[in-house]
Amino acid sequence: MISAAIVGGTGYTGIELIRLLSAHPKVSIDLLTSRSEAGTRADEIFPSLRGISDIVFSDLGEDTLAALQKCDVVFFATPHGVAMQQAEALTASGIKVVDLAADFRLQSLAEFEKWYKQSHACPDLLKSAVYGLPEINRDKLADAMLVGNPGCYPTTAILGLKPIIALQNQQNERLIESRIVIDAKSGVSGAGRQASLALNYAETTDNFKAYGVTGHRHLPEIEQGVEQLLASQFTQRIRFLPHLVPMIRGMFSSIHLELTESGAAIDWQQEFESSYNGETFIDVLPTGVYPDTRSVRASNRLRIAIYQDNERRELTVLVVQDNLVKGAAGQAVQNMNVMFGFEESMGLNAAPIVP
Amino acid sequence: MISAAIVGGTGYTGIELIRLLSAHPKVSIDLLTSRSEAGTRADEIFPSLRGISDIVFSDLGEDTLAALQKCDVVFFATPHGVAMQQAEALTASGIKVVDLAADFRLQSLAEFEKWYKQSHACPDLLKSAVYGLPEINRDKLADAMLVGNPGCYPTTAILGLKPIIALQNQQNERLIESRIVIDAKSGVSGAGRQASLALNYAETTDNFKAYGVTGHRHLPEIEQGVEQLLASQFTQRIRFLPHLVPMIRGMFSSIHLELTESGAAIDWQQEFESSYNGETFIDVLPTGVYPDTRSVRASNRLRIAIYQDNERRELTVLVVQDNLVKGAAGQAVQNMNVMFGFEESMGLNAAPIVP
Amino acid sequence: MISAAIVGGTGYTGIELIRLLSAHPKVSIDLLTSRSEAGTRADEIFPSLRGISDIVFSDLGEDTLAALQKCDVVFFATPHGVAMQQAEALTASGIKVVDLAADFRLQSLAEFEKWYKQSHACPDLLKSAVYGLPEINRDKLADAMLVGNPGCYPTTAILGLKPIIALQNQQNERLIESRIVIDAKSGVSGAGRQASLALNYAETTDNFKAYGVTGHRHLPEIEQGVEQLLASQFTQRIRFLPHLVPMIRGMFSSIHLELTESGAAIDWQQEFESSYNGETFIDVLPTGVYPDTRSVRASNRLRIAIYQDNERRELTVLVVQDNLVKGAAGQAVQNMNVMFGFEESMGLNAAPIVP
Amino acid sequence: MISAAIVGGTGYTGIELIRLLSAHPKVSIDLLTSRSEAGTRADEIFPSLRGISDIVFSDLGEDTLAALQKCDVVFFATPHGVAMQQAEALTASGIKVVDLAADFRLQSLAEFEKWYKQSHACPDLLKSAVYGLPEINRDKLADAMLVGNPGCYPTTAILGLKPIIALQNQQNERLIESRIVIDAKSGVSGAGRQASLALNYAETTDNFKAYGVTGHRHLPEIEQGVEQLLASQFTQRIRFLPHLVPMIRGMFSSIHLELTESGAAIDWQQEFESSYNGETFIDVLPTGVYPDTRSVRASNRLRIAIYQDNERRELTVLVVQDNLVKGAAGQAVQNMNVMFGFEESMGLNAAPIVP
Repeated sequence: MISAAIVGGTGYTGIELIRLLSAHPKVSIDLLTSRSEAGTRADEIFPSLRGISDIVFSDLGEDTLAALQKCDVVFFATPHGVAMQQAEALTASGIKVVDLAADFRLQSLAEFEKWYKQSHACPDLLKSAVYGLPEINRDKLADAMLVGNPGCYPTTAILGLKPIIALQNQQNERLIESRIVIDAKSGVSGAGRQASLALNYAETTDNFKAYGVTGHRHLPEIEQGVEQLLASQFTQRIRFLPHLVPMIRGMFSSIHLELTESGAAIDWQQEFESSYNGETFIDVLPTGVYPDTRSVRASNRLRIAIYQDNERRELTVLVVQDNLVKGAAGQAVQNMNVMFGFEESMGLNAAPIVP
Repeated sequence: MISAAIVGGTGYTGIELIRLLSAHPKVSIDLLTSRSEAGTRADEIFPSLRGISDIVFSDLGEDTLAALQKCDVVFFATPHGVAMQQAEALTASGIKVVDLAADFRLQSLAEFEKWYKQSHACPDLLKSAVYGLPEINRDKLADAMLVGNPGCYPTTAILGLKPIIALQNQQNERLIESRIVIDAKSGVSGAGRQASLALNYAETTDNFKAYGVTGHRHLPEIEQGVEQLLASQFTQRIRFLPHLVPMIRGMFSSIHLELTESGAAIDWQQEFESSYNGETFIDVLPTGVYPDTRSVRASNRLRIAIYQDNERRELTVLVVQDNLVKGAAGQAVQNMNVMFGFEESMGLNAAPIVP
Repeated sequence: MISAAIVGGTGYTGIELIRLLSAHPKVSIDLLTSRSEAGTRADEIFPSLRGISDIVFSDLGEDTLAALQKCDVVFFATPHGVAMQQAEALTASGIKVVDLAADFRLQSLAEFEKWYKQSHACPDLLKSAVYGLPEINRDKLADAMLVGNPGCYPTTAILGLKPIIALQNQQNERLIESRIVIDAKSGVSGAGRQASLALNYAETTDNFKAYGVTGHRHLPEIEQGVEQLLASQFTQRIRFLPHLVPMIRGMFSSIHLELTESGAAIDWQQEFESSYNGETFIDVLPTGVYPDTRSVRASNRLRIAIYQDNERRELTVLVVQDNLVKGAAGQAVQNMNVMFGFEESMGLNAAPIVP
Repeated sequence: MISAAIVGGTGYTGIELIRLLSAHPKVSIDLLTSRSEAGTRADEIFPSLRGISDIVFSDLGEDTLAALQKCDVVFFATPHGVAMQQAEALTASGIKVVDLAADFRLQSLAEFEKWYKQSHACPDLLKSAVYGLPEINRDKLADAMLVGNPGCYPTTAILGLKPIIALQNQQNERLIESRIVIDAKSGVSGAGRQASLALNYAETTDNFKAYGVTGHRHLPEIEQGVEQLLASQFTQRIRFLPHLVPMIRGMFSSIHLELTESGAAIDWQQEFESSYNGETFIDVLPTGVYPDTRSVRASNRLRIAIYQDNERRELTVLVVQDNLVKGAAGQAVQNMNVMFGFEESMGLNAAPIVP
């Protein structure tokens, strides 16, 4: 049994962490902090937790760090810029840290500062932070003290592209043309638990729109992920356009690629299946089956379908996940499992909720 | 052609007024005021108005009153408590006023102050204000200078009960037992255009709840409406419980009554039909047809169905309307039509939007 | 480990049973039958089950009974009228049966035939069937061979009324007047997994309506449940009106009661709390907290709030549940747990899904 | 006043036509046919029409043609393959025909037969049919006897690409690379008014998916539209992928293009604005404003936004419309207006419904 703390548990990733960790057989949530809600039981804010957890939000002020240092792992479910204030002290004390915000996702300080409009509090630590995609960085995660939990969109994009880039590297020739269009769609919970006119039900329902049209923070993260996979002789340009879907949870990324002649010679269905063979949470759908977001609702699974049309030189990769689970809190728990040597799927086996 | 002003047009009743009045053949919207949005075109805030109206929000500060006094009619689509600050000066200058908030709905100062937590700025004017339900107060409205536009729930409740109470008065004996349950349901737009966590899409969708369980401001208004219809020898107790439905527009009131022996002798279907015969906006559905809210979406119609079970002594009245039209802006335009002697349905003939 | 069969698992209660039983530590689903889908893997129809269950629908024709007789428990997730064809043979062989349809809910043959338009295949067995509300019939369930799993609305109504009726019996005087209004609302999944124009998304969304206005099959079941609780000297009239809410899961029953003078002397909050003290799945909310349906989404919990207004003699009981869980499949599993002597909450502890 | 007939008015395009034509100052709906609903008033099926239209569905059997020949214009709101059975006789009699299905959209018989799985009943007539996009074929429409009303997706795609292709032709050099990705999203009403499990509310809500992944009937129509605009020296490859959005109405097409060096030298915002200058129903949004579908809900407007990133050589065109209006019935009325020399916007001026 390890002792976990959640810093800032009043948002949607916070409640999702509480939900998942409450059912985890090897974790005890011993500390839950919130400045605004100190003294309030979590189940007063989230009545769904009544009977599940009796934990109380606390604000320990100057004693917070000391309290966190008594835990084995600290999850930051806070706005961007909070975790980096405490990560150094915590990891120095041997406490493992998983940040669900963006503080430790981007390796480039310049990109971080450009997109998040703040300077980084611990640039040195950044180098030792591991990007928390277990299907890519499993080995590094096993030894990591500090994990930057990926953004939701980048999780779908990077895992949707990995088998393609890997094979291209291996064959040492271009299999896809150099431009990828990632047309992505997210449910509204991705915008967080906040009072906002733009998120008001009457503004959002029966409506659909693009956002981040001129640039979205997840673009540099996707580019970094692709860059890290890509052999040095290749470059890849990416157009990433997110949209807001009137649904609570769910993310759908439609990845449009163009095959080269060599690329058209590959059986991509087969390639994806073998690439993800053995991965508990990655489900490559059979040929002709296409995913919908509800098929992963409230679960840590990510499903991928591939459609290949050699005549038109099209390769389409469709990826779905629950943005709050594999796209956030579930992946954080998966990372924790790897960091502590638990079975990777522990606490994450619940079936999706359909209908 | 009359000249109209809308004070505070940034909410949902505001945009609905703009939509309806823009298509009204005898009205020109000449002034649209907003403190927060002064200088902004209305179609910047509501892009749906692009190509429909090029009006600009203005804030005339101290000159506001003078500007309003150049109009023929002023609509207040403001929070409670604003119209009563200006109604006296306007009506004294011969300007007709329709307040879509609650300042002129309740005749009882005590009730107003109890439910709206403020004292009334012009109690004397209150007596001359007409409650804007044309199907009940048509004659008074024809001469009115000041109209309190009804609340959305009271519109359904009072119109749903009127034929019953009227007949009871006429027969001078109880036709229904003395307790009525009004179990009402509203779409989310009824809560207004505001940033609010409770109205966030992810909080509201796929969810249903009651609110105002311990008391709702529309209860005294319903009670006043019933009282005014009721002959003096009768009393009537009302339980009013509103609920929030995950839909944008629409209001559904389920009115549960218990028939006395005399009440069971009445053919209520027939009674409602004759009571509302000739009313353009009141549609009494045929026996066996029950309404849904979308059948009045974006229209000024209110539909009523009656179900009578003499064996069980039950009378059920189901009333639907669009809370933003017959429940707010449409009724305001209907009132204006009566006040200015226009055809009552002018500008209000558009068909509901289905699907 | 017991062996379970699900007959007719292609509907929403079917998939919910598969979801719940797949995670149950003492149950193995060994047989899943469907005539229409025989030979198809369940996860082809419900891709959410990929990785959760690899069970295949089968149609054993004449051998079905023999196959079912090898199991310990058989769940019927079938249309009304199927379970009663096989219940006799199964229970005679010592197989326990839980019917999620209506075949064994009503003790009155006349009522069954009136509301379900068919004659009953095994009227004698009816007497030994136990109505599967563990919070009321726990002792009988422990020995039951045949359980009629309650309808969704009756579950909320009977559990919402039980503490009131029990106290009235005990005090031997009327605490509530003799007429109760149950104004109930259900998500669309309650109508089942079917192709139906009336359930088409574009017909149902952004819309609200009543149904079963002239009478609903759950009324006699509610009346039976109330009757069985009620001491013989009392009678109780019930008006039950269901409505359709544009949401997937969730049920909300607003129960309107009128207190007698003696009833107003009771502290009903206290009464409900003590009445349900120790019940895992019944959550009586604290004073001033009112439920929403999502607070029980995908869980077996049922939450109750009480509002008492002595001045107006009103008692309002608000009950929420997930219609597919406590209102169907979850309750079936809870019944099974009692029938087999397992811990009653086994396999039913998952937290609700919010947001 | 012209006399109009609607053949097959029981679907969503049918009711939308009734709604629009009922308010059209120069049209009288004199005939409404339906085999399945003959003898039924339209407002029994669509109660929203109560008080709007008292027309009755009729089935004239063998006399249908004669009855249609008494009208001035016949709209076919039927399944694919119906209009082509009667178009010849009607147009020969001088009756104008607008088919809202696909019978007269594709000029290529081979494509028609490939995608619609039927042979064409009047291939000769096909040549004289005009593709009903007034913004492209206005002149031809003025003289047309037979109009193929465009598919919903092609309307957005073709109008979203027209200014680009036109300028490329004019400059006689490639401005965009030869591959276009059209990632499109539609509300559920686009699938029609039908009983279908896949369209059941509980299957569709809180869910998002792609469909037609391996090919969609609107692809050849888009390709034909692009081809017709394109100068002969150019070719253009198109990837079209539609998705289903949990909303009733609305269509959003995200068109991803890659600029050539010459293309990057163009000010595309300016180009679109001048290209659509004077078009009543095409609204090119100002720089930095991006559309949402509700901004055109229930209206005939189509809004376009352009985002140009020269550094990345990206051009993104976002197009929204109401799939039932500009994407179907509204465009049909617009076509009729052109065909009969009415003002093009007659009967189509209603403001969008927001919220």
